[in-house]
Amino acid sequence: MRAYDIIAKKRDGQALTGEEIRAFIHGYAQGDIPDYQAAAWSMAVYLKGMNVQETAALTEAMVTSGEQMDLSAIDGVKVDKHSTGGVGDTTTLILAPLLSAMALPVAKMSGRGLGHTGGTLDKLESIPAMKVGLSTDEFIDQVQRIGIAVAGQTANLVPADKKLYALRDVTATVESIPLIASSVMSKKLASGADAILLDVKVGRAAFMKTKEEALKLAQAMVDIGSRLGRRTMALLTSMEQPLGNAVGNALEVAEAVATLANQSDCGFGPVSAELKKVTLELAARLAWMAGKASSVEEAMVLAEEKLSSGEALARFRLFVEAQGGDGRVAENPEEILPRSTYREPVRAEKAGVVTSLDGLIIGQAAALLGAGRSKKEDAVDPAVGVVIHKRIGDPIEPGDVLAEIFANDRGRDEAKQLVRSAYTISVGSAQVPILPLILGEVRPEQ
Amino acid sequence: MRAYDIIAKKRDGQALTGEEIRAFIHGYAQGDIPDYQAAAWSMAVYLKGMNVQETAALTEAMVTSGEQMDLSAIDGVKVDKHSTGGVGDTTTLILAPLLSAMALPVAKMSGRGLGHTGGTLDKLESIPAMKVGLSTDEFIDQVQRIGIAVAGQTANLVPADKKLYALRDVTATVESIPLIASSVMSKKLASGADAILLDVKVGRAAFMKTKEEALKLAQAMVDIGSRLGRRTMALLTSMEQPLGNAVGNALEVAEAVATLANQSDCGFGPVSAELKKVTLELAARLAWMAGKASSVEEAMVLAEEKLSSGEALARFRLFVEAQGGDGRVAENPEEILPRSTYREPVRAEKAGVVTSLDGLIIGQAAALLGAGRSKKEDAVDPAVGVVIHKRIGDPIEPGDVLAEIFANDRGRDEAKQLVRSAYTISVGSAQVPILPLILGEVRPEQ
Repeated sequence: MRAYDIIAKKRDGQALTGEEIRAFIHGYAQGDIPDYQAAAWSMAVYLKGMNVQETAALTEAMVTSGEQMDLSAIDGVKVDKHSTGGVGDTTTLILAPLLSAMALPVAKMSGRGLGHTGGTLDKLESIPAMKVGLSTDEFIDQVQRIGIAVAGQTANLVPADKKLYALRDVTATVESIPLIASSVMSKKLASGADAILLDVKVGRAAFMKTKEEALKLAQAMVDIGSRLGRRTMALLTSMEQPLGNAVGNALEVAEAVATLANQSDCGFGPVSAELKKVTLELAARLAWMAGKASSVEEAMVLAEEKLSSGEALARFRLFVEAQGGDGRVAENPEEILPRSTYREPVRAEKAGVVTSLDGLIIGQAAALLGAGRSKKEDAVDPAVGVVIHKRIGDPIEPGDVLAEIFANDRGRDEAKQLVRSAYTISVGSAQVPILPLILGEVRPEQ
Repeated sequence: MRAYDIIAKKRDGQALTGEEIRAFIHGYAQGDIPDYQAAAWSMAVYLKGMNVQETAALTEAMVTSGEQMDLSAIDGVKVDKHSTGGVGDTTTLILAPLLSAMALPVAKMSGRGLGHTGGTLDKLESIPAMKVGLSTDEFIDQVQRIGIAVAGQTANLVPADKKLYALRDVTATVESIPLIASSVMSKKLASGADAILLDVKVGRAAFMKTKEEALKLAQAMVDIGSRLGRRTMALLTSMEQPLGNAVGNALEVAEAVATLANQSDCGFGPVSAELKKVTLELAARLAWMAGKASSVEEAMVLAEEKLSSGEALARFRLFVEAQGGDGRVAENPEEILPRSTYREPVRAEKAGVVTSLDGLIIGQAAALLGAGRSKKEDAVDPAVGVVIHKRIGDPIEPGDVLAEIFANDRGRDEAKQLVRSAYTISVGSAQVPILPLILGEVRPEQ
């Protein structure tokens, strides 16, 4: 089986066999197949697509290219959630303790990633003394002991995906449904969860701009999970504007804590109702998938109860302290979390109503301030970012604070300009778009 | 202008600008753009195509990636011919002296190449003491002095094409009309000819299997030449069976000499009438393009005259001797050229008529015997090969010699089996396919 023939077959629009896909992916991961052949192959896959069988085989080949987490020592149904990414998406920080409060084992491996802000690990690290580098044994032991751990991966999971993703990133072959779906699912499968919920973001600040595209990606991922024997579901949620109000590492921790504490303000600014709503929808579905309730509706009642009772917040404190962090963050985030030198408002100049709020621009502003990284080696400034005060549909008077920027020495003026440009404020009888928060759901075929 | 954006633009089916193409090709030739980006780009071009402007811009970018031959010191219209390749195509060895006899300057740069037999240079080197490595000055000087030289290129012509072709060869992106057309034409343009005739082979032993494909390639090449200011024409000729009867280096020289000497047998075997016919058609068109006649028909009369008078043979001898070779090859090829140890017939087992003769299999047999090379470094055995005695349409009696193999110590039995399997001999009222030798012509739009 020559790499050349596998490239040519896909180039001609034919379906590859599982054996061909495995040979190609393992050969590439091991360095037997060079980058240039993988690049030609990726472009052929981008332009000719892959069917459900091929996409599942690709995922499996990536999973078996490296180690796989064995979570069998942990009792119960291990659940995992993956978001396709957006701006102000702090759900994991709320969802993990909430699921734990619902008596689900939470063994969550997370990442840092590149982007407007850091990843979940970077956010957690803004809590003083918090440790996210656990060995596999420490990680499993902590879940067994207290029911929850969130840490970076130490095992060599899906090396083929790491290599292929880096290549796709420089060869214009990222935006391909089968390649995205297999990349996401390979990481989830290798991480050892029994049930997987995919939060597919839709809208201008998301990777998928339309519901149609998002549905295709969601279906592809659910198909892979089902074929490879994992309970898998997908929820389509809106990313037309930032989900949470906080965009920045410590700021997002503060908003997560305020949400867990059932507050409407996090000291740094207001709490987003949408963030809470999406987190509850995710929690209810995961609990239902794990058999904690006989319907999503019943699971929702349980989730709301665990959140409003403060049990989820207590699990958050327990988890932070178990990983060496300062648990007082659960009571006084504003005092415990790092603060930026500057806090400056961006004010409205005219009256009207917010008709759009571009999350990508808000994200760029946060990145300019130092909240994110563009190279692996970059450091993240935990204190900086943007906090949104006015969202789509809010009425505006001149002088109102639209948002605030939290800055240190970098990018203050430019960030303020960007934040201002992210808002469209319309006057008169402007149509305010109606934005359903939950746009759809994909369940596996029975 | 980032390589990434140029790849993405072509991936999305958009036309690239001349500037983008030049930046990409020169960047690749200089090593600023890595192989993997060029591979993704090549696959995108393969699958999305290129328009006439893009293909011309690609050709020009390749030409300007290296040196260009300056033939202006040579008086007259410098003509060049390129064949897209087949089996038993010995036209250059006959055409070059014939054109010279028609008072056209022949400054032909040729290659060795990979394939069933060697290239024109390898064939010439089977003539004892023949020297094909001339410096650029020696080359031009010889054409000025005696009107003809055939040698390997010494200048660094089209380095971008060399690099890109090697990459396409391992990434399944060879068979693309714009990529083939620009590759061929870049070499012809850099070689400095004023008028270019393309011999596009069609049929089972050719790269282009159908007339439709061949016409597209021919049109693409003529368009490039016209856009870049060179008189360019294409002839479509049949490669349904080997063109000449000899397939092997010295054997092909012998057949060329016999054709130039107006003989029907070359000592090693019979001379192919098709080979002579195609060579005359090419010569007539080139002479017409160079203004030596007012029509192709008039040029044909001249070409036939120069061949039958022996003037072309005399030019051949002059040229061989100018390059140090043993000129007696023009009278006694059988004695001067190297001979193989074994000469063995492949005989027919039953009566019938030859309804097909697979040139690719004949080529494989010649390669097995050592006539060709599969790697640049391989040596070619000048003496070995296959000589065809029976062609499509010939009636066969049991025991007739279909072909002969000329072998040294390599692959004798296997080659004979292959040669036998290349023939289809049908009995009864079998339909013998009608094979027009000249299938079409493409001239530039006026």
